[in-house]
Amino acid sequence: MKVLKTIEELQEVRKNTKGSVGFVPTMGALHDGHISLIKKARSENDTVFVSIFVNPTQFLPGEDLEAYPRKEQADIKICEMCKADYLFMPQADTMYSPEEVLVKAPNKSYILEGKTRPGHFDGVLQVVLKLFGLTQPTNAYFGKKDAQQLSLIQQMVKNFFLPINIVPCDIVRENDGLAKSSRNVYLSTTQRKDALLISKSLYKAASLAAKKEKDVKVIKDKMLEVMQGLDVEYVAFVDREFNEIKQIQLGNTIILVVARFDKTRLLDNIWI
Amino acid sequence: MKVLKTIEELQEVRKNTKGSVGFVPTMGALHDGHISLIKKARSENDTVFVSIFVNPTQFLPGEDLEAYPRKEQADIKICEMCKADYLFMPQADTMYSPEEVLVKAPNKSYILEGKTRPGHFDGVLQVVLKLFGLTQPTNAYFGKKDAQQLSLIQQMVKNFFLPINIVPCDIVRENDGLAKSSRNVYLSTTQRKDALLISKSLYKAASLAAKKEKDVKVIKDKMLEVMQGLDVEYVAFVDREFNEIKQIQLGNTIILVVARFDKTRLLDNIWI
Repeated sequence: MKVLKTIEELQEVRKNTKGSVGFVPTMGALHDGHISLIKKARSENDTVFVSIFVNPTQFLPGEDLEAYPRKEQADIKICEMCKADYLFMPQADTMYSPEEVLVKAPNKSYILEGKTRPGHFDGVLQVVLKLFGLTQPTNAYFGKKDAQQLSLIQQMVKNFFLPINIVPCDIVRENDGLAKSSRNVYLSTTQRKDALLISKSLYKAASLAAKKEKDVKVIKDKMLEVMQGLDVEYVAFVDREFNEIKQIQLGNTIILVVARFDKTRLLDNIWI
Repeated sequence: MKVLKTIEELQEVRKNTKGSVGFVPTMGALHDGHISLIKKARSENDTVFVSIFVNPTQFLPGEDLEAYPRKEQADIKICEMCKADYLFMPQADTMYSPEEVLVKAPNKSYILEGKTRPGHFDGVLQVVLKLFGLTQPTNAYFGKKDAQQLSLIQQMVKNFFLPINIVPCDIVRENDGLAKSSRNVYLSTTQRKDALLISKSLYKAASLAAKKEKDVKVIKDKMLEVMQGLDVEYVAFVDREFNEIKQIQLGNTIILVVARFDKTRLLDNIWI
């Protein structure tokens, strides 16, 4: 695997790459979720590019960009083990000019995860568009865990007619069901046990939907029963394009939960 | 030449096109300026795509989108004569979704042409990004006449690292120097004669700069002298990235003039 530290190196490599290209953009601190994306990309493409870039424009003022975990050496090892061909790790100042053409995410970027982070998804789309321009992927891999981000990226690709296949990848879970996250390490033993109720509530919802329950109010109440005692920030029901829905549409529904454990915010969702 | 009326047709054709692709995006009503772009594209690429699309998002409320000249049959003939391979003429409603990821041009889109048309360049960049996504050109051809538009497109390509070579094309002029424009037909005989003073003032500026005059104030005064009696909207001096400048930088300066003749607004510029 070759580590590419500059834009020019990447462009030179990409120009000479033939065949299908799989791309996995990340902010580093790689865990099992990322590993599953890279392995999937490896199995489906001739060449695999991974990027690690903690993108400043998706952090809002006051959000601690500097505190975002950086694990450069471990990340390089992981990408090597997953048999990526190229790991792109640019410097932030080379990715941006003083004045930029910006990307503006649509209104649905201001609900749920975007509600408390206005402008966050503008920054996400901006950097993803830049990275797509650089890597020109055939297939790009994103986790379903960040479902709203995935949906907005899918919309961007559709709106700009980019010839890129976006591959949504399943959430990777611990054996007991907890969604893998770099934030799980912040949980105390009790919190770790309580956190299980999140995925439990989602399984409950899926089972109710499978039994033809359509009313999201009914399902939400049952989910909150399962999560009794947790500090639930939201339970939401959206279609695949992230419009909020009142009735379950089998094959076109995502149910999302966010719960807080002190300062740790855990996200999970299920696609039904 | 094949006329492609749908996005799907274009995508199918593009997928099967090998070699270099030249692209000339237009809003139709083709004149000698467009013809020079298409011919240049023809001489430099294996395959040439032209698009004709009167893009609604670059018209502001109150600007008369419907009155924009449409000359479909004549335009098709012209593209055939210039030996384009494909002419893409999509319906407006197929190019846009109800909710869109938007493009936001930087602050310099709000000076000069953008001053009286706030948001105009957002719409231009949006549709150009869409058309680039669809045609995936190696080379894309734009006239220097719309210098601010050209500059913003160059910035977008740079910011998003698009692997597209933007080719700025020289202004095509009448024998007496008047820049070709579809608006020239609106001029009366007297106005047509007066309009000559625009290009004359630009040649005067170029000659002063060649004689080492650096001060844009001095040059501007001389230009206004040449254009005495004209309704001059602005004379502006910018560098190639459209930052306004106070001193001529040879090889990096564009001088722009806009003058009004009743309701007809004529643009011209010179690159020195």
